[in-house]
Amino acid sequence: MAAPEETAVPARRRRGRPPFVENHRERILERAAVLFGTHGFQGVGIAALADDLGVSKAALFHYFESKKEIYDSIVLEALRGLERSVYDSLSDEDDPETQLLAFMRAHAQFFEDNYWKFLVMLVGFGGISPPLVDEVMEIRNAYEQRLRAIIRAGVKDGSFAKVDVDTAGRAVLSMLNWMARWYKPGGPRRAADVAAEYGDLLLRGLSPK
Amino acid sequence: MAAPEETAVPARRRRGRPPFVENHRERILERAAVLFGTHGFQGVGIAALADDLGVSKAALFHYFESKKEIYDSIVLEALRGLERSVYDSLSDEDDPETQLLAFMRAHAQFFEDNYWKFLVMLVGFGGISPPLVDEVMEIRNAYEQRLRAIIRAGVKDGSFAKVDVDTAGRAVLSMLNWMARWYKPGGPRRAADVAAEYGDLLLRGLSPK
Repeated sequence: MAAPEETAVPARRRRGRPPFVENHRERILERAAVLFGTHGFQGVGIAALADDLGVSKAALFHYFESKKEIYDSIVLEALRGLERSVYDSLSDEDDPETQLLAFMRAHAQFFEDNYWKFLVMLVGFGGISPPLVDEVMEIRNAYEQRLRAIIRAGVKDGSFAKVDVDTAGRAVLSMLNWMARWYKPGGPRRAADVAAEYGDLLLRGLSPK
Repeated sequence: MAAPEETAVPARRRRGRPPFVENHRERILERAAVLFGTHGFQGVGIAALADDLGVSKAALFHYFESKKEIYDSIVLEALRGLERSVYDSLSDEDDPETQLLAFMRAHAQFFEDNYWKFLVMLVGFGGISPPLVDEVMEIRNAYEQRLRAIIRAGVKDGSFAKVDVDTAGRAVLSMLNWMARWYKPGGPRRAADVAAEYGDLLLRGLSPK
């Protein structure tokens, strides 16, 4: 097996990104996410991925055992990144309304910043294989529970009306995740601003006060 | 080419459905939707579909020119059915709130009743090919406009708060369509009841009155 130095994945210039990606593994995941997100898992072979990266298949197998491991790693890393990014945006000292809006903005911001991995993650929920499935489900469940805890706290302290917590949590994630179907990065609006509008709508409701 | 009588697609018994499907074309679309929805478009060949239906490939080609035409027909028929079903549930004489809830319930009910075609339709929006793409986009746009018209009327007559109509319409469709990712038919709850809960949440909002 070639040493990492010899299997360097060329870092292509992309606007707004550093010209050199130090982490080869990360570089592979980024490009694989674009290809999987565009052509589907079955539509991308290891050879096509290696070709896209300008490396040999052996170089890829230095980092990953299989195409499936690459795919699963994208799903897992996107989910971990989402969790970290959203949790970092939350402060227990903030009121539930502020926390809910921070959650929604951070979720949408991460989606925009990690567009292709996020798309692959959403698709991958349905097709992930052991042994990663347990960890993925654990993180996802914890993530949903965190959101529900914010809503539950708001219902409890009177910041929110007495809504069904599970329904409200699902509504929030539905609005955020459905953005993957219509929002395209690079346009005039930030995803986080769209999320803030959803949050505002959800807080105020359609009925006049 | 064999006559339709000789290419009869066997109608298998399914709970809650008539034991005989008179329309062979419809029967092909139903089974193809299950297979495409389960394995993806690329994961299902004409041979596998014919085998599933217990007919020859020639029999399939009697009704459809290609696998893509089958796929596109599923997308188009699901969208037409959704439109018809939802519009039938609306009455101009009802107030905007009633119309909005009727829209949401009917959309979810159609999804539950046409689960696999609906899934294929949602995926197919991204990959549909000419000449159907124009018709599909036209129906979809008209459908979204109909929803927005209800919300706009409510904002105008004071039934609804002065919300952004496009954002509210997107929020409604996000909640409904994301159900395709987590709701499974056959469980204890009707999809229409879930939609009604979403509608109630959206109308009242999270903030206490």
